[in-house]
Amino acid sequence: MKAFVYVGIGKSAVEDRPKPEIQAPGDAIVKMVKTTICGTDLHILKGDLATCAPGRILGHEGVGVIDSVGAGVTSFHSGDRVLISCISSCGKCDYCRRGMYSHCSTGGWILGNEIDGTQAEFVRTPHADTSLYPIPAGADEDALVMLSDILPTGFECGVLNGKVSPGSSVAIVGSGPVGLAALLTAQFYSPAQIIMVDLDDNRLAVARKFGATETVNSKDGKAAEVVMRLTGGRGVDAAIEAVGVAATFQLCQDIVAPGGVLANVGVHGQKVELHMERLWSQNISITTRLVDTVSTPMLLKTVQSKKIDPTRLITHRFKLSQIQEAYATFASAAETKALKVIIEA
Amino acid sequence: MKAFVYVGIGKSAVEDRPKPEIQAPGDAIVKMVKTTICGTDLHILKGDLATCAPGRILGHEGVGVIDSVGAGVTSFHSGDRVLISCISSCGKCDYCRRGMYSHCSTGGWILGNEIDGTQAEFVRTPHADTSLYPIPAGADEDALVMLSDILPTGFECGVLNGKVSPGSSVAIVGSGPVGLAALLTAQFYSPAQIIMVDLDDNRLAVARKFGATETVNSKDGKAAEVVMRLTGGRGVDAAIEAVGVAATFQLCQDIVAPGGVLANVGVHGQKVELHMERLWSQNISITTRLVDTVSTPMLLKTVQSKKIDPTRLITHRFKLSQIQEAYATFASAAETKALKVIIEA
Amino acid sequence: MKAFVYVGIGKSAVEDRPKPEIQAPGDAIVKMVKTTICGTDLHILKGDLATCAPGRILGHEGVGVIDSVGAGVTSFHSGDRVLISCISSCGKCDYCRRGMYSHCSTGGWILGNEIDGTQAEFVRTPHADTSLYPIPAGADEDALVMLSDILPTGFECGVLNGKVSPGSSVAIVGSGPVGLAALLTAQFYSPAQIIMVDLDDNRLAVARKFGATETVNSKDGKAAEVVMRLTGGRGVDAAIEAVGVAATFQLCQDIVAPGGVLANVGVHGQKVELHMERLWSQNISITTRLVDTVSTPMLLKTVQSKKIDPTRLITHRFKLSQIQEAYATFASAAETKALKVIIEA
Amino acid sequence: MKAFVYVGIGKSAVEDRPKPEIQAPGDAIVKMVKTTICGTDLHILKGDLATCAPGRILGHEGVGVIDSVGAGVTSFHSGDRVLISCISSCGKCDYCRRGMYSHCSTGGWILGNEIDGTQAEFVRTPHADTSLYPIPAGADEDALVMLSDILPTGFECGVLNGKVSPGSSVAIVGSGPVGLAALLTAQFYSPAQIIMVDLDDNRLAVARKFGATETVNSKDGKAAEVVMRLTGGRGVDAAIEAVGVAATFQLCQDIVAPGGVLANVGVHGQKVELHMERLWSQNISITTRLVDTVSTPMLLKTVQSKKIDPTRLITHRFKLSQIQEAYATFASAAETKALKVIIEA
Repeated sequence: MKAFVYVGIGKSAVEDRPKPEIQAPGDAIVKMVKTTICGTDLHILKGDLATCAPGRILGHEGVGVIDSVGAGVTSFHSGDRVLISCISSCGKCDYCRRGMYSHCSTGGWILGNEIDGTQAEFVRTPHADTSLYPIPAGADEDALVMLSDILPTGFECGVLNGKVSPGSSVAIVGSGPVGLAALLTAQFYSPAQIIMVDLDDNRLAVARKFGATETVNSKDGKAAEVVMRLTGGRGVDAAIEAVGVAATFQLCQDIVAPGGVLANVGVHGQKVELHMERLWSQNISITTRLVDTVSTPMLLKTVQSKKIDPTRLITHRFKLSQIQEAYATFASAAETKALKVIIEA
Repeated sequence: MKAFVYVGIGKSAVEDRPKPEIQAPGDAIVKMVKTTICGTDLHILKGDLATCAPGRILGHEGVGVIDSVGAGVTSFHSGDRVLISCISSCGKCDYCRRGMYSHCSTGGWILGNEIDGTQAEFVRTPHADTSLYPIPAGADEDALVMLSDILPTGFECGVLNGKVSPGSSVAIVGSGPVGLAALLTAQFYSPAQIIMVDLDDNRLAVARKFGATETVNSKDGKAAEVVMRLTGGRGVDAAIEAVGVAATFQLCQDIVAPGGVLANVGVHGQKVELHMERLWSQNISITTRLVDTVSTPMLLKTVQSKKIDPTRLITHRFKLSQIQEAYATFASAAETKALKVIIEA
Repeated sequence: MKAFVYVGIGKSAVEDRPKPEIQAPGDAIVKMVKTTICGTDLHILKGDLATCAPGRILGHEGVGVIDSVGAGVTSFHSGDRVLISCISSCGKCDYCRRGMYSHCSTGGWILGNEIDGTQAEFVRTPHADTSLYPIPAGADEDALVMLSDILPTGFECGVLNGKVSPGSSVAIVGSGPVGLAALLTAQFYSPAQIIMVDLDDNRLAVARKFGATETVNSKDGKAAEVVMRLTGGRGVDAAIEAVGVAATFQLCQDIVAPGGVLANVGVHGQKVELHMERLWSQNISITTRLVDTVSTPMLLKTVQSKKIDPTRLITHRFKLSQIQEAYATFASAAETKALKVIIEA
Repeated sequence: MKAFVYVGIGKSAVEDRPKPEIQAPGDAIVKMVKTTICGTDLHILKGDLATCAPGRILGHEGVGVIDSVGAGVTSFHSGDRVLISCISSCGKCDYCRRGMYSHCSTGGWILGNEIDGTQAEFVRTPHADTSLYPIPAGADEDALVMLSDILPTGFECGVLNGKVSPGSSVAIVGSGPVGLAALLTAQFYSPAQIIMVDLDDNRLAVARKFGATETVNSKDGKAAEVVMRLTGGRGVDAAIEAVGVAATFQLCQDIVAPGGVLANVGVHGQKVELHMERLWSQNISITTRLVDTVSTPMLLKTVQSKKIDPTRLITHRFKLSQIQEAYATFASAAETKALKVIIEA
């Protein structure tokens, strides 16, 4: 089968690979229908992730059709259409029991990282019963691809951890796909203010269309000042960090109100400074989280009942045969204005 | 009246001062019966707190008897015995309504800091109705002095924020008075393990008497290793920082389990490093808090029902006339083995 | 001054009364600008409320202007425009500290019940600092009249107690003003389904305009069946009872899903049957609540940020001189299609 | 193999049955080591449970050794010592994902009810990976038998649902095994008062030994009065119903304080009266629950760390060959003073 492979730092290739096979009783083999590219995939290609070895088929998102299942799988059968979660969860270990699938002792984020992923014609998914979701009849499968990772990530790490609530004030620092996913899902809770911060005016324009009440271009280094002014000097109840660098983490520290939450979503490669000399008495929380995808059933209901339209995140479409072009488009988002791309089998 | 006054950096004096007077309708004048000294008082004497100007009468803890009240005070009358909270709370502002008395718009920690405090024969307490608590008949007033600050601080900032729960594992880094207050109140929730970490073997011995299940002297720089071993490699569900320096904050980062809480209690004078490159995916919370004393009514009930004995924290007793000696004893805790001292009128 | 007075069972009158005076340091005298009529006022007129004696000026809702304040009032001054909460809260007692203003030891629902109310030219409001709310500049005062009682009642007793959440299913039994207030505020949380049940087709038509996803006329006795069918046989996550009689309480028991909440809002005059022989194993909660109005500051923010438009509940307008006509209109809602009426000074 | 069988209303027998066999990939066959008898088993023998057909092997509690496992079982192997949960949980369905194992779509309370149970030499346990728990080395297996049902039932349905907290007041109505299990586990949270109510003075004496702060014999019909007096007229924060009849449910309604919880544990056979005409405004919750055993891992930790000693509930011991005698003893608790009995293979 065709598969998109991380060959080595800065190198990728579409390769012919054997179709994957059932290895454990809980496995399923899924024929891919649609997949997408994540910012993390770009990190892998740059060599930033030690867990992902050269030779790996990338991709941890998508929808597909069950090809075959192992002896222990009871919820799915050949021919079932399924949503693939980016997180594999055994449903049995202590972490899974507590809803912390991201730290599953035999799962977590392994697809397209520690084992082969979804940017291929077929994928093997471990713990299928608790890592795949049946696709409701009539569902928009493009929308569901957004439920593999981007939407639960923005929602769980940003909105739920940030305790966004009716009438509250929220700032989301970073208006890329995951920041926009937080913006869309924050609106489930009717906050009074959602201030989006970014360096790219196009992305801020998108944010306004997606429901931001105010936008701030942080280019001039005065974003903290502006957010404080927009909140009457109090700061925000939830400062959602959706970039992953020291400067944006600092900005979030500067704008979080007493009693508020700094909810980190961004993937950080470096340590940051934490101003405990000021924050120790501010009654704040700082939260971190690798998405657990524990909210997937709930997000499915919000999509099915049209409370949210995740297809608004989709800007480009490609065939699997065009995946190198898809990567190029996604990697040059500033020029292409790409958010999420759909890659069809 | 006699009062203990911060004169300037490194200088204090017992001075004669006029008896305070009612300034606002919500004020009470309280004749002090017992007070104590807090670690923060030592910080003030060193000049560490910009908010506290020379000339200030120190002290934010104690019990006393109502001398007189302003026109708006409805809950207290002359002659009532009261517990003085270290936090003044108006009960009306947005923060007070949310239970965040520490950030009261006209209160917070002002006693012995922005206004004159309790280490004197009399003190003026603003917002008396919502900042004083009636002393139940027959209560042990020594125990109640511990409820002004040290017990709610350890409990709210450490135990409540740390979500200590039955069967959980806790490490408390710092076995001084506030760490021990966290240790005593953590036992309300029956955790399976409470590991105390300190540099001082005497304090660790006290901790064992107070209910620590294990103690670790961190002198050799291997505390993180030991805590990880004691928790089967998982780390602790709650890492309570009760010192306030970079090294102990770092230790807490090293030992908090995925899904756990780093609950900061210590007063920090410097920024710290936060290892987001490792923690971003660990599903942890870091919490900060200036005590709100919102738990005071509940703590009173636990003292009255003998679920806790806060007098175990009291090591020395002085008269107000001996307050300089009391400070000397408290400041040399390593030698004197002082925890909390009682200063009687 | 002119005042609407409960004279005795079935009897009311507009009477001339002396302007009220400050009686306690926490009191304010408010010149009424707008008020409204509550279903509870009709109950009083029928003689259903033993707490309300003949001679009482009715009314517990409205906005006005501060005329004068007692010596202990610090937040308001003569000339301030204020929203009057239906609940008087001292902010000091144990219940108020816990946010349960409805059970304030010297307050609760006393206005227009145990003391004279707001359907008059002036009203005395006890505990003014913690029972009145400043009206933001430019606010729509009609909207704010809905925040005295109806909106927080639907929200706190129905939506908050019912734990309405994104993607969940809700049934609201009773599509009168308070049911509709629950319907409007339930949408803060983006549930997938809100099924409204009533006997009156007009009110169900209103409900659809206000955001109900489905409506059920329960006239034929088959409402439970229909709700079960609409929820795929599972029942609803939240069954909100907004009537207060045995039949509607029974219906809620029949449609609440395992793990769900039966949130009672209705005022009951009789005991009901509870089918514990079936419900004991269903993991449900039944909640009751007299509105605390603890959510008023938050509701104000949602109104100011246009997340909700409470003026949609207003169907009729009268002058205070026409208050008997206003009562007649409100009491004949089936014919007049009245929901909430505004009565202007 | 020998097995204790429900033969028909009022009739039971020890019968010879074939050893059970693996039927599904998730099954395990467990050789029983110890089991016990539950009050529900007595109900079955009386014919009260329509779900349990004659011919059924009873028993849903116990510890044993894995004999064999199905192809899908990954956590257990032949020879492993295991605790058997009374609730079978697939870990995959919507209810299991939400921690509501009691309503598992293919499990729940089926052992010794809808399928053959543990009062036999062997038992087949479905969903073994998520319904059995490994027994830690050195654990007291008698104690663990109490973790199959009685302890999680008292804890989850009574203590957790009742929101027992430090300093709070609790009444437990019913001092049988499950009421005593609630009493033992309530102490995890250090309430100020635990008042036990029963008709049997022996059981009240046991309750005092187990930590009750006060006991009330309700024989004279004045229990409500006494509880109100013991709580200063306020009532209790948590009223835990551990009997399951109308009179005790009524008593709980009479003693629950405003803002409190009536946590039902008892199995009810009849509807009850609910005094909504009084309770509608009392801000209470009434909760029901079939035990989910979601707390089993946590309870295991509290037993291993000696925060609780569940063997205090064990009064008698029998061999499996004496099971009829065990039933007779357990059924005549008033005379035999039996609480829980251990039945060894």
